[in-house]
Amino acid sequence: MKQERIVIALGGNALGDNLVEQMEAVKGTAQAIVDLIEEGHEIVIVHGNGPQVGMINLALEAAGKTEAKTPPIPMSVCVAMSQGYIGYDLQNALREELANRGINKPVATIVSQTVVDANDPAFKDPAKPIGAFYSEAEAKEMEAKGYTMKEDAGRGYRRVVASPKPVDIVEKDTVDALLKAGQIPIAVGGGGIPVCKDGNSLHGASAVVDKDFASAKLAEMIGADALIILTAVEKVAINYGKPDEKWLEQLDQETAKQYIAEGHFAPGSMLPKVQAALAFVASGPERRSLITMLSKAKEGIAGKTGTVIVN
Amino acid sequence: MKQERIVIALGGNALGDNLVEQMEAVKGTAQAIVDLIEEGHEIVIVHGNGPQVGMINLALEAAGKTEAKTPPIPMSVCVAMSQGYIGYDLQNALREELANRGINKPVATIVSQTVVDANDPAFKDPAKPIGAFYSEAEAKEMEAKGYTMKEDAGRGYRRVVASPKPVDIVEKDTVDALLKAGQIPIAVGGGGIPVCKDGNSLHGASAVVDKDFASAKLAEMIGADALIILTAVEKVAINYGKPDEKWLEQLDQETAKQYIAEGHFAPGSMLPKVQAALAFVASGPERRSLITMLSKAKEGIAGKTGTVIVN
Repeated sequence: MKQERIVIALGGNALGDNLVEQMEAVKGTAQAIVDLIEEGHEIVIVHGNGPQVGMINLALEAAGKTEAKTPPIPMSVCVAMSQGYIGYDLQNALREELANRGINKPVATIVSQTVVDANDPAFKDPAKPIGAFYSEAEAKEMEAKGYTMKEDAGRGYRRVVASPKPVDIVEKDTVDALLKAGQIPIAVGGGGIPVCKDGNSLHGASAVVDKDFASAKLAEMIGADALIILTAVEKVAINYGKPDEKWLEQLDQETAKQYIAEGHFAPGSMLPKVQAALAFVASGPERRSLITMLSKAKEGIAGKTGTVIVN
Repeated sequence: MKQERIVIALGGNALGDNLVEQMEAVKGTAQAIVDLIEEGHEIVIVHGNGPQVGMINLALEAAGKTEAKTPPIPMSVCVAMSQGYIGYDLQNALREELANRGINKPVATIVSQTVVDANDPAFKDPAKPIGAFYSEAEAKEMEAKGYTMKEDAGRGYRRVVASPKPVDIVEKDTVDALLKAGQIPIAVGGGGIPVCKDGNSLHGASAVVDKDFASAKLAEMIGADALIILTAVEKVAINYGKPDEKWLEQLDQETAKQYIAEGHFAPGSMLPKVQAALAFVASGPERRSLITMLSKAKEGIAGKTGTVIVN
C-alpha cells in the first residue's frame, strides 16, 4: 500500500463530553489511529473542542463571580487551554498504544493558532455551538446574561460563538518538521486558537474555528495526500433518515453541490464536513477526502468503506 | 562566537502574575530571547507556572461550587492547561519579535510531560501550597475527598501538593527534532505535566515539578551545551542582603556544596536554582550553567556577567 501523508479530523465522539469520558474514549481513538500509523502513513491529528472549551469558558466565567474573582479570560485563551486539556490525554493514549505495539514514534501536541479574517461575516452572525445543552427555560436565562443561544439539531439549546473560516495555520512548519522527523503531531486542536493578523502581530479573536475546515486548511498547507474526517456514521447519506436514504461511496464537486443545494446535509453537522472535504480536494491535484467513522478509518483508507470525496 | 544549544529557564518575572501582565511581560522576554537567537544559538524555552496554575486550579474549584458544577480537574490537567495559557502568549511574542527583526524561525509550544518517581519522598510530604483558602470545616471535607490540606500561616487551610524530582522528559525527542529543524520550541512549561510510569502507561500525578530542575533534566537529555536560569538578580550572592554580601562570578561543585551547607541560598528561591545548575553541569562533560537576570542573558552567555556554574 502507498504510504501517504494524512490529516485526521476527530469528531466529538472520539473524546467524550467530560474528563472521565475523555480518558476512556481516547483509548479507542488511539487504537484506530495507531492502526493507520502501523501501515506506515504519516499522520497528523486534529480534534474538536466544543464541549471542552465550553466547560472551560463557563467555569472561568463562573469563577469570576465567586470569591476566586478570576479575571475575564478571552475565548482565544480558552481554546489554548483546551488544547492542553485534550492534547495531554490524547498524546498519552497514542504513546501508550504505540508502546504496546512496539512502535517507537514520539507523539506531541502543538499549541496551534489559526488565522482568520477580522472581516469574516461570521463575526456578525455567531453560529457555532459550544459547551453544554440547555433547556429552553435555561437558554432564556443565559440569553438574559448576554450569551447568544441557539437550538441545536433537536438536542436542546446551546451557546453559540462566531466561527470564521481559516485562512492560515501559523504552526504549519512545525507540523511539517515533526512529520518529516517521523513523529506524530496533534495540532490545530479545536480548530486552532483563532487569531487575526495585524502587521507582524496576531490578536486573539472571540471565536471558535470549525475543526473540519481547519483540518482541511492544515492538510492543504502541509501538502497532505488525504484528509479523513471521522464522525458518527460510516458514510455520507442523501435523504438521511428517510425511507429512500442512500449511502454514498463517492462524491465529486458537481454532485456534492447539487446535494447541498437540495438540502441533503444538515448545517452544523454533515454539511461543514462535506464542505471541508470539498475544499481540501479542490486545493491541489491528487488529493482526496474520506468521511467515515472512527472504527472504520483503517478500512476506509484502504478504499473498503466510507464516502470518498474527489474533485 | 561558538553556536550552542541552550535551555533557557524563565523566572516568574518573565511572565507576570495575570493575563494582562503576561501579555505585556512576554514582549520584553521575547526581546531578550531573540537577542540570543540572533547570535545563532539553538534555543529551547522553559517557563514557570506558579501564579497561572494556581489561578486555573482555584477557578475550576470555585466553578465546581457554582451552578456551572465543573467536575474536579486533577492538578496534572491544570498544568497541561497552563502550558496552553502561557505558551500561546509566549510563542506569539517570540514570533512577532522574530518577524520584526526579519528572522524566519517557527516557534511552537509542546505540551510536555515530566516523569517523576511514584516513590519520590516528596509525595509523602506534600509541601507546595496551591489554590484557594478553606475554613477548617471545608478543609476536613476536602481531606475526605483525598486532598492533603495544611494550615497556612494563620490565613486558613490550603491544598498542598508534592514537588517531586524529574527523572525523564517524555517529549525530549520532539524538542530535539524541532531544534534540528531550526525551530524554537517552548517546552516543559511549569516544570512539565507530572506523570508516573506504570508499564507503558503514564498516570498524572498530583504534583507540581520545579521548573528549574525540569529545565536541567531537559538540558541533560537533549545534550545541551548550556542551561541559563533567569531570575530577578544578575548574579548569585553569598551573605545575600548582608553587609558582607559578595556576588559570585563562578561557582564549582565543591564550593557550592560548602555554601549550601552554610545556608547561603534560600530554600524555595536561590537554592533550587543553584542545585538545578549543579545537576546539569554534573550530567556530562563541557556543560555549564549560568544564573543571571533576563535583561543580561545575552551578555551572560558571552561571558560578561552572571554567575557561571561549572563542575
